[in-house]
Amino acid sequence: MPAPTKFLEYVEANAEKFIKRLAEAVAIPSVSGDAAYRKDVFRMAAFLESELKALGCEVLLKPLGKQVLDGKELDLPPAILASIGNDPSKKTILCYGHFDVQPALKSDGWNTEPFTLVVDEKTGRLIGRGATDDKGPVLGWINVLQAHHELGLPLPVNLKFCLEGMEESGSEGLDELIEKEAAPGGYLHGVDAVCISDNYWLNTRTPCLTYGLRGISYYKLTVSGPAADLHSGAFGRAVHEPMTDLITLMSKLVTPQGKILIPGVEDLVAPLTEAERKRYEVLDYSISDIEASVGASIALSSDKSAVLMGKMRYPSLSLHGIEGAFSAPGAKTVIPAKVSGKFSIRLVPDQTPEAVDPLVIAYIQSEFAKLNSKNKIGIENLHGGKPWVADPEHWNYVAAIKATEHVYKVKPDLTREGGSIPVTLTFAEKLGVNVLLLPMGRGDDGAHSTNEKLDRSNFIEGTKLLGTYLYEVGAISA
Amino acid sequence: MPAPTKFLEYVEANAEKFIKRLAEAVAIPSVSGDAAYRKDVFRMAAFLESELKALGCEVLLKPLGKQVLDGKELDLPPAILASIGNDPSKKTILCYGHFDVQPALKSDGWNTEPFTLVVDEKTGRLIGRGATDDKGPVLGWINVLQAHHELGLPLPVNLKFCLEGMEESGSEGLDELIEKEAAPGGYLHGVDAVCISDNYWLNTRTPCLTYGLRGISYYKLTVSGPAADLHSGAFGRAVHEPMTDLITLMSKLVTPQGKILIPGVEDLVAPLTEAERKRYEVLDYSISDIEASVGASIALSSDKSAVLMGKMRYPSLSLHGIEGAFSAPGAKTVIPAKVSGKFSIRLVPDQTPEAVDPLVIAYIQSEFAKLNSKNKIGIENLHGGKPWVADPEHWNYVAAIKATEHVYKVKPDLTREGGSIPVTLTFAEKLGVNVLLLPMGRGDDGAHSTNEKLDRSNFIEGTKLLGTYLYEVGAISA
Repeated sequence: MPAPTKFLEYVEANAEKFIKRLAEAVAIPSVSGDAAYRKDVFRMAAFLESELKALGCEVLLKPLGKQVLDGKELDLPPAILASIGNDPSKKTILCYGHFDVQPALKSDGWNTEPFTLVVDEKTGRLIGRGATDDKGPVLGWINVLQAHHELGLPLPVNLKFCLEGMEESGSEGLDELIEKEAAPGGYLHGVDAVCISDNYWLNTRTPCLTYGLRGISYYKLTVSGPAADLHSGAFGRAVHEPMTDLITLMSKLVTPQGKILIPGVEDLVAPLTEAERKRYEVLDYSISDIEASVGASIALSSDKSAVLMGKMRYPSLSLHGIEGAFSAPGAKTVIPAKVSGKFSIRLVPDQTPEAVDPLVIAYIQSEFAKLNSKNKIGIENLHGGKPWVADPEHWNYVAAIKATEHVYKVKPDLTREGGSIPVTLTFAEKLGVNVLLLPMGRGDDGAHSTNEKLDRSNFIEGTKLLGTYLYEVGAISA
Repeated sequence: MPAPTKFLEYVEANAEKFIKRLAEAVAIPSVSGDAAYRKDVFRMAAFLESELKALGCEVLLKPLGKQVLDGKELDLPPAILASIGNDPSKKTILCYGHFDVQPALKSDGWNTEPFTLVVDEKTGRLIGRGATDDKGPVLGWINVLQAHHELGLPLPVNLKFCLEGMEESGSEGLDELIEKEAAPGGYLHGVDAVCISDNYWLNTRTPCLTYGLRGISYYKLTVSGPAADLHSGAFGRAVHEPMTDLITLMSKLVTPQGKILIPGVEDLVAPLTEAERKRYEVLDYSISDIEASVGASIALSSDKSAVLMGKMRYPSLSLHGIEGAFSAPGAKTVIPAKVSGKFSIRLVPDQTPEAVDPLVIAYIQSEFAKLNSKNKIGIENLHGGKPWVADPEHWNYVAAIKATEHVYKVKPDLTREGGSIPVTLTFAEKLGVNVLLLPMGRGDDGAHSTNEKLDRSNFIEGTKLLGTYLYEVGAISA
């Protein structure tokens, strides 16, 4: 059951109206990480509340408590819970998105004012902070509601929304809300599947669905010795230097080819199946794509599938930096007294922080013991999150695949992402249902960066895709 | 020929006057590294000019040109060249010191106002910025001049002075001045030996003479890959990470026991002679001294001589830090695009920067080639300086040893220092004469640190020592 032609025509015909609404949303600088903009995050919530109500939704603004930011106690922005339709014969889909954005100043390197949506007629780009992350996708759902509202069409599913205003700042308070509302009697109880539109195509050409995310374990490894920093002339080769020990330990974590050297960590990785390998082989991707993304010919392999599996289905260990050592330009002859190496492991099934942490700690301790150093070490896990993988053969994915074929006339890439979107795991675990990541934007949108954009065609075809996906879900339930 | 009793008695009797003059000097905040205090460095030069002239010296203030500091073009403080006595039958001694100081704010952690000399009657400490580094020693010479002036005693030698106001800020302009004035016809031409009082006893108990300093070669090793920092989720295990390469290379430079792993670097070290080994064995030093200095039990050896030779007569390699990596508190999941490791080698005879640099560069390149990385490396020497060793059996040292025995009733320790005092090498090379480092302060004076102090007894006995040293030099020339 593809979407009705009049829905698709309505979206096409009302593109300018939709872009105007996106411009209104971008003009509200809802930066969640800066206390000065907190009122704008509230304004953005009110904007969405008003739009949703006008289109027939029941809307609840859920207070999430307080936080301390920049030394001030602030109210957290509310989460928006909304619903439309309550037909027990239809499936119920929960849509998640967020209405807060990353900070942006023109002086960061923007070519235009970040909070003024600029329509570049030549390239078709809609440029502005939040255009793709995540105001465009959130408004995509509202576009779908508007089309049905104005055309007098019933929706093919019951819809619920969970929209938050703190995604760029740790989603404070959201996990607790989801847990509470997922319980029997809760607002989110009984949804059949979840759809999240908050990630990106693998490239700039081919739509994708995303069925996996890596988890993370982030470590701080501290070596301390002298009571204060020492002069390297006065004490070099007289005492154990914390930096020497730390660098030696950090060098034993991962090879320049990316292999993790901590015994047991790679053994936890689920074996690659033949079916899975084929999924990587068919992805629309090439070595030149990754080289273009990073701006250098530094791919670890010349084999496309190996590169994709490296970032999608194998764990990685990155060394991020050192706290406490000399880090400024120029030359300083210091022996730092206490240095902390920061590194993290991106986790994949069947790894978990709980399984990996003891391996990391035991290895560090055993390698440190080999150094015969009189310095002291400490290691702590700063934060962790499990990896997530969904079944891409579930009806939720089947519907999205069919919808993509209808709207874009191509099979979507089935991808996994190397980063984390923690709320995905929360929905999967608390609701116990399939979660689909259905991105609207392209791989070069520059979310979090300067000159963030959403292509006009992605906004309009993406709106069609979200609507069509609901019809395909409806067809399955019929 | 020990110093005349009336000289020693004069010093004892006028201690309070000397301390008052030190207080006047400390009250002038002659911080050379901060443009806001530049006028005070000039005031300090004028203060010394006036004192020296009043005591019978000929004084020249030598302009050293201009510098740019904090974005402003400033006049460099002048060097003070002064002389008293021109008797061809006497030896001529050149005294070096500096009248600028390190920055100091009470809020740095001082217990008292840093630019107000506080006399702690209980501990005998004279506390204030510059008390020991280097206003106390410079005024020690002036105390000697005052005693002879007021007693109507002829000096046992001809004295020349070279005092600078930029020592804490790279001694800008001084090398060129010394080179010029060392040439025939120059102000410093024909001096017989140099005496520098600008370092410290090895401990808090035993006076020392210092006959060696390590040199240095400071390196910046840069690994670069992507065009910009990358997200470790999106790209971890897909690309060559500069930090992984850099940490691997840095781990191959030195062992946790301090051995330098760069082939050939340690081979350049002059062999240890039996006579030299004995010099370390007799030094008044113990493992508990170094543990007290660094505030931790982290000595590389439990053998006193091994620890002393490690910091005095063997090279050391210290890893100072990394520029370009994540260095703040907290957790950031970045793959830094370009990272520069800073490390330096403290050089000893017969090492020189010219001999060591090619070994370092060749080794880094060969180790990097083994990594099979597609990233790029660069290595540069940020600055270098040769090591310096004088002959401690020269008459200049013999005189200082005898003077120490007269004043302190002990044999001085004969030490080498692990750091650099570049002007030492300049004097040795340009004048071609023996240079003696004759410290006034103790090892715990805290030069450059908070609560810098000079013990009252070191100031007064130190003044006697400087005078007595001149008499011992005079006796040799007689």
